[in-house]
Amino acid sequence: MTVRTGAFAFALLAAATGAAAEEDLVAAGQALSTPCATCHGADGIALMPAYPNLAGQNEQYLVSALNAYREGRRQGGMAGLMIPMAKALTDEDIAALAKYYASLEP
Amino acid sequence: MTVRTGAFAFALLAAATGAAAEEDLVAAGQALSTPCATCHGADGIALMPAYPNLAGQNEQYLVSALNAYREGRRQGGMAGLMIPMAKALTDEDIAALAKYYASLEP
Repeated sequence: MTVRTGAFAFALLAAATGAAAEEDLVAAGQALSTPCATCHGADGIALMPAYPNLAGQNEQYLVSALNAYREGRRQGGMAGLMIPMAKALTDEDIAALAKYYASLEP
Repeated sequence: MTVRTGAFAFALLAAATGAAAEEDLVAAGQALSTPCATCHGADGIALMPAYPNLAGQNEQYLVSALNAYREGRRQGGMAGLMIPMAKALTDEDIAALAKYYASLEP
């Protein structure tokens, strides 16, 4: 195998590994989303108008919002519900949930 | 005109007036949305991943979120930007903006 084809094979492997890691994170987020679904819907479409739809929302924004709830900085609205839920989440949980909801069809 | 057709005509008029009032509110929201579009996009699809998409979001949730920013209760994330913007809004402005963004295609 030449250096060139070796590099190409490595790039392919890295891309496949990246895609698998993304899928793993989405699956982990879905597994964590059961309590969220009570208000935000199983498909990320909220069950009541007081709650936001999350399907297709920007992943980075979702991470930021969950962090703000977890740190108790985001008050008002449904913060009384969200803060205790967010406090139970690790950084990895938040990353997985954000990737999962961003992956859903809005 | 009988009582019955009178009542029907009244119901039609009320429905038409209601629809016109909704349209007026959407138009008022659109007129107010110019500064919002800098981050949330002219069509309610955010221009950067740190910001949330607002198109098709639940109206009642948007009212609640804007109130929480206006009252300075929602901190974290982009609150440093959002609080001064929200403080400039009246209740009517918030109602109009929420209806406008909820009316957009997600």
